[in-house]
This record gives sequence, C-alpha cells and structure tokens, in this order.
Amino acid sequence: MKITCLQENLKTNLNIAQNIVGKNLTLPILNNLLLEIDNGQLKISSTNLEIGINTWTSGKIEKTGSITCPAKILTSFINNLPNKKIELEAKDNNLYIKCENYKAAIKGLSAEDFPLIPKIKEKPISVFKKSEALKNDLNKVVGAAALSESRPEFSGVLFKFEKDSVRFVATDSFRLAEKIIYQTSSISQPNSLIVPQRTIQELIRILGEKQSQEVRFVLGDSQILFDLDEVQLISRLIDGQYPDYQQIIPKNFETKVTLSKDELINNIRIASIFSSKINDVKILIRSEKIEILSQDPDLGENKSQMSARVQGKPMEIIFNFRYLMEGLANIGTKQVLLGLNPEIQGTSSRSNPAVIKPVGEDGYLYVVMPIKT
Amino acid sequence: MKITCLQENLKTNLNIAQNIVGKNLTLPILNNLLLEIDNGQLKISSTNLEIGINTWTSGKIEKTGSITCPAKILTSFINNLPNKKIELEAKDNNLYIKCENYKAAIKGLSAEDFPLIPKIKEKPISVFKKSEALKNDLNKVVGAAALSESRPEFSGVLFKFEKDSVRFVATDSFRLAEKIIYQTSSISQPNSLIVPQRTIQELIRILGEKQSQEVRFVLGDSQILFDLDEVQLISRLIDGQYPDYQQIIPKNFETKVTLSKDELINNIRIASIFSSKINDVKILIRSEKIEILSQDPDLGENKSQMSARVQGKPMEIIFNFRYLMEGLANIGTKQVLLGLNPEIQGTSSRSNPAVIKPVGEDGYLYVVMPIKT
Repeated sequence: MKITCLQENLKTNLNIAQNIVGKNLTLPILNNLLLEIDNGQLKISSTNLEIGINTWTSGKIEKTGSITCPAKILTSFINNLPNKKIELEAKDNNLYIKCENYKAAIKGLSAEDFPLIPKIKEKPISVFKKSEALKNDLNKVVGAAALSESRPEFSGVLFKFEKDSVRFVATDSFRLAEKIIYQTSSISQPNSLIVPQRTIQELIRILGEKQSQEVRFVLGDSQILFDLDEVQLISRLIDGQYPDYQQIIPKNFETKVTLSKDELINNIRIASIFSSKINDVKILIRSEKIEILSQDPDLGENKSQMSARVQGKPMEIIFNFRYLMEGLANIGTKQVLLGLNPEIQGTSSRSNPAVIKPVGEDGYLYVVMPIKT
Repeated sequence: MKITCLQENLKTNLNIAQNIVGKNLTLPILNNLLLEIDNGQLKISSTNLEIGINTWTSGKIEKTGSITCPAKILTSFINNLPNKKIELEAKDNNLYIKCENYKAAIKGLSAEDFPLIPKIKEKPISVFKKSEALKNDLNKVVGAAALSESRPEFSGVLFKFEKDSVRFVATDSFRLAEKIIYQTSSISQPNSLIVPQRTIQELIRILGEKQSQEVRFVLGDSQILFDLDEVQLISRLIDGQYPDYQQIIPKNFETKVTLSKDELINNIRIASIFSSKINDVKILIRSEKIEILSQDPDLGENKSQMSARVQGKPMEIIFNFRYLMEGLANIGTKQVLLGLNPEIQGTSSRSNPAVIKPVGEDGYLYVVMPIKT
C-alpha cells in the first residue's frame, strides 16, 4: 500500500474513526485502525465489535494493499503535522509516513486479523437531507435514554418510521423525550427499531465533524447502517419490544403555565444550590406567577419568583431539578409551556407526569415524572 | 450585621476568598467564610491554616456584627444572582440574603470559633507597581518547584531580595527556573525567603482576578503578607536553607543553538508521541540544523528536522520532553537559545545541565538536566 493524500482530509477521517477505539487488552488489534486501498481511495476502518466506522479519503495511489496500526499514535502524529501532502506506505508490517521535514515508522499488525465489519447493502428506509437538523433532533432525545442496561430497550433510542414521519423517542422511565420529524423522505413501510445510545452519540459526533449532502438509514439483519458521504457508521440494534409510551403522555391538563425558558432555567439553577440529596425543587403555581422553593435541613433554604401566564388551578408540585434542566435545555424557543395535573390522592397516591413543550414549535415533547409528596 | 452591596463586587471577592476552602471534616468551620463589618466595609476571610485571605467590599452598612457560613453554597448562590443590590443580614446564626425576586437563608456558625488569621503590619520589603507583570513573572518559575515535600525547600519558590533587584527561583533538582526583576522598588536589606508553591499559585490567581495599583510584600514572623488593594494573602514561609543554585548554572557553552521557539515546541510535541516511558527525546545538533528523534520499541520511531544557527561543536543530547516543553512555554520571545556542554565521560559519567534562554530579553533562565546515555 502506498498513497499520498492531504493532511487535512486524512486528519478529519482519522479523528472520526479513532473515537470508538478503546484500550482492548484481550484483543489488541481492536486498538488499531485498518487502512486499505478500496475503490481508488484510502479506506480507514475501526470497530469495537458493537459499532463499526468506515471512512474514505481520496489521494494519489501508487500501490494497493492494507495494514492496521495503533489508532491513538497514528492519529496524534497526523494531527500534529502541517497541512501538506502526506505519504503513507505499508511495508513489512510497518507504516512509513513522510511529510515535509517529518518522518515516522509505526509498527502495525497484519490486516488479515482485523475483524470484519458487516456490509449492509439494502435500500435505505429513510433519507435525511439536512444533516445539521438531524444532529440537533437526535441531540434533543438521546440524553433521556437509560444509562443502565437492566432493561435493554430503555438503553436505546426508538426510531419509529411512519408513513410521512419519523419519531425519535428515549426514556429511562423517569422522563421521556420525543421528537417527530415530518420533512423526511421515508421510503420504508411502517417499522420500529431501537438503536443503542452510544451509537446515536457517535452519529451526532460524526454529523458535527463532517458535512454531508444527505444521511441514509439502511436496515440490515439486526443491524443498521448510517450512510453519509465518505463515512459509514454500522451498529447492532437492541432486541426487544419498546413499551407503548404514548399511553403515558397526558393529553389534557388541569393547569397550563406559559413562561420564559431562560428565566425558568436560571431560577431552577439557583434553587438547585439548596436542594437536598434527592435533588428536589418545589414549584408553587399561583394566579399570575410561580415561586420556586428548595431547602436542605443542614444548609438552609431559598425562594425565587417569576411572572407567568397561568391557565387553570393553582397547584404545588415537586421535581428532580436535573430532569427539568435537561428537558428545558432541549427547547429552542423563548417561551415554554408546562402542562400539569394534580397528584391522584387515595390509598395508593399516584403522581401524574408533567409535560414540557416549546411554545410556537411543533414536534417536540418532554415528559417528566414529579417526585411524590 | 446588615449591609447592602453590589452583586458584582461581592461576587469577585467571594470567589477570591473561597478558593482555598476545602472540605475539612475534622474542623468544619474551615469550610466557612468569615463575614464581618470592618472599618466601614464588609470583610470576607478564609483560611486553610497555611494560607489566609482577607478581602474588603464596600457597601451601605445598617448594622455591624459578624457571622461565618459555608463558602461553596454562599458563593454559588451569589454567583447566580443578577448584578443588582444584595442585602446581607446575620441573625440567629443564619445569613439572610435578598436580591430582587430572590431570597435565601443559609445556616451559619458563630464568628467566634473562626481561626484567627495573623496580622502582619511591618513595613513592606518590596513593592511591585505592575501587578500584571508580577503575575507573568511568577508564572515563569512556579511550575519548576517540586510537588513532593521530601525536601521542603524545593517545594517552594525562593525570593531573593538584593539591592535593586528581586530573584524568583524554583527547582525540583531536575530543572530550575530563575526570573530576575530589576524595576521593583526594593526597600529592604538583602534577604532570602522560601514561599510555598501553593501560595504562589494562589497569588497568581488573585492577580489574574483583581486589578491592583501595587502589590506590597510584607515580612512577618515566619510569615509573609501579599497586600493588594482590597485583598490580602497571608502565608507561612518554608523553613530551611535554599541550596546555592547559582553554582550549577553553566556560564560557558561548547555549543550554542539559536532557533524558532514555536517550531521547536511543535517538533518536540511530535517526538513526544513516540517517546518511551522515560519521556526521552534525542536532539542531534548538526552544522546548520537540528534533528529530533524518538523511538519506542513497541510503537515505532520518528524523526524531524529544523534549521538552526549553530555555534560550536555538533553533539547529541537526550532530554525528558516534559521538562523541555515546560521551559519553552515560559519563553515569550520568537527565538530561543540553547546552551549545551557535552557529557563528561569517565568512570562516573556526568551530564552537564543545558540552559534555555529567550533571545533578546534579559532576566529569564531555565536550566534542565539531560538524561544520561
């Protein structure tokens, strides 16, 4: 293998590929990147056995072939070189690199031992034209997925393809985020699948680093391919049935509050300073304002108030401030709507979930369970 | 105690005072700040028993008195308030705070139990007119002090006051940094003292946060006071005799190399990627260029070259790249001079220290021991 390419192009693709490479002691070749000449380009691949990444870099090819070499050292070296032509040559399991006044030889391993990244070549089930918008939409839901895998389906993001829309949904049972996209060209039949949270985070990162004309979602055999220009991300899917989440989203509210998002975020942040170990802050809904209270028996207490448009009954409700803050951070509008229902009293008192929505923008919804009093 | 002051002023002084407050479980009052009315101002004090800080904030006083309360919660709360008037009132061991729509009560402890910060009221031994320059000068040496306290005198920075100059010196025996300041008004007799590294870091931080007309160094009984407008930093001194460091600084060099600082830093950074566990990089001095080499038997090797003005004999020398990088980072000029002498061969071969200096600027010197071959 021998190829000359530009430092800038190589650097971008190395950084995309190396991010999923960890420190694998049992299978050292997983610490490596695979470099091979493929269809007249330099293909760089990485895998952690759950996620695989392929990238293609154009250049002047003198000799085909392949090699693998340690991801971190190759990436660090290339990142620090000037933006000039770089010559890469594989010989005797070494990768030789030349660039202006810089030379290096990196010890590699044979490409034959590198795990195969599966190829998925079906037709796309969905195509997104605006990669920037897709990145923002996924960002609004990915944080609500569960970190634990005790219920595997909650550790992923649901993709629900319908006739002319796609829904992205994530929940850890304490809060839930749903984003509906209408403007996509969905090609497929109605279909549901669950993508691991880590895969979505990787996709968001790649969409941030690489401009792409369009992003194609291609479904394989219990795997999914995200196909961008010059970059592919392949991931396993999560087995299991996603719960019927729509039934827990309240449709009607006894109390609706419209207020400034930034002021609300600031006042919750201040309240969080005094909140106790369960992260509780109390919201008191009055006729034309809300008050936010928090207290810790050892530290002290605080109270703030802000004006709000309140429709319906005054009420008091307690939330985990972290869940509120995460939901509010996903909202891009100036005004936000809180939809609330009182706790159901009785022998087994039950809290009713609250809903947070942007005002003047459709398609996003954040549901959060209050803390029972 | 009751006082009204501006959020911005209070915030700056709280942040200066709270930084030395840790999490002290045996003496909980050390987690607190002392607030008291002093000479018509609000005095805020903190101590970790090694370093003490006093700050003064002006405001409208309604009632004198004092209280202590937890540093972190008070600072977080004030930091998040709008830049408006804040009313602070101490009552029944609580601190009550009001600002626009925000109210808080923080549980405090009586001011009587707060440890006394010693008062030093001697005449200054030195006065610095430019606090920004003092900050930069201290920054150039503080990193060379030893982290370990196995030899206590190496864990501090030497202040050596002479007739019309002050020297700041630090070393951990592997490298040494010396900065001489001529433009100060030294009032004292010749004098030497060793200030803990942590104190210097604190002083640098305060000089970065607070403009001051002048900085006065005042010597007390085995303590030193750094007196800025509205802020005082008081610290213990380190007992012990600083070694006669000047005898290890070479005065003549067999080889002198003048070269671009930024290019040298970049090439050492690249070499560091391939250096082995002892952080070694090898510098080969040729007639009109230098080469930088590094290699690790498991990873591979690399080589770069750059042009340089070389006076004297070609030679080869090995350094710990971290020490080189730290020294070069302290140099503000474009060109840098390396002064080198060859290793002394014999039954007990001995390395000769190298010297790094800015070109075209006096008063700074960084000495670094090579790695023996």
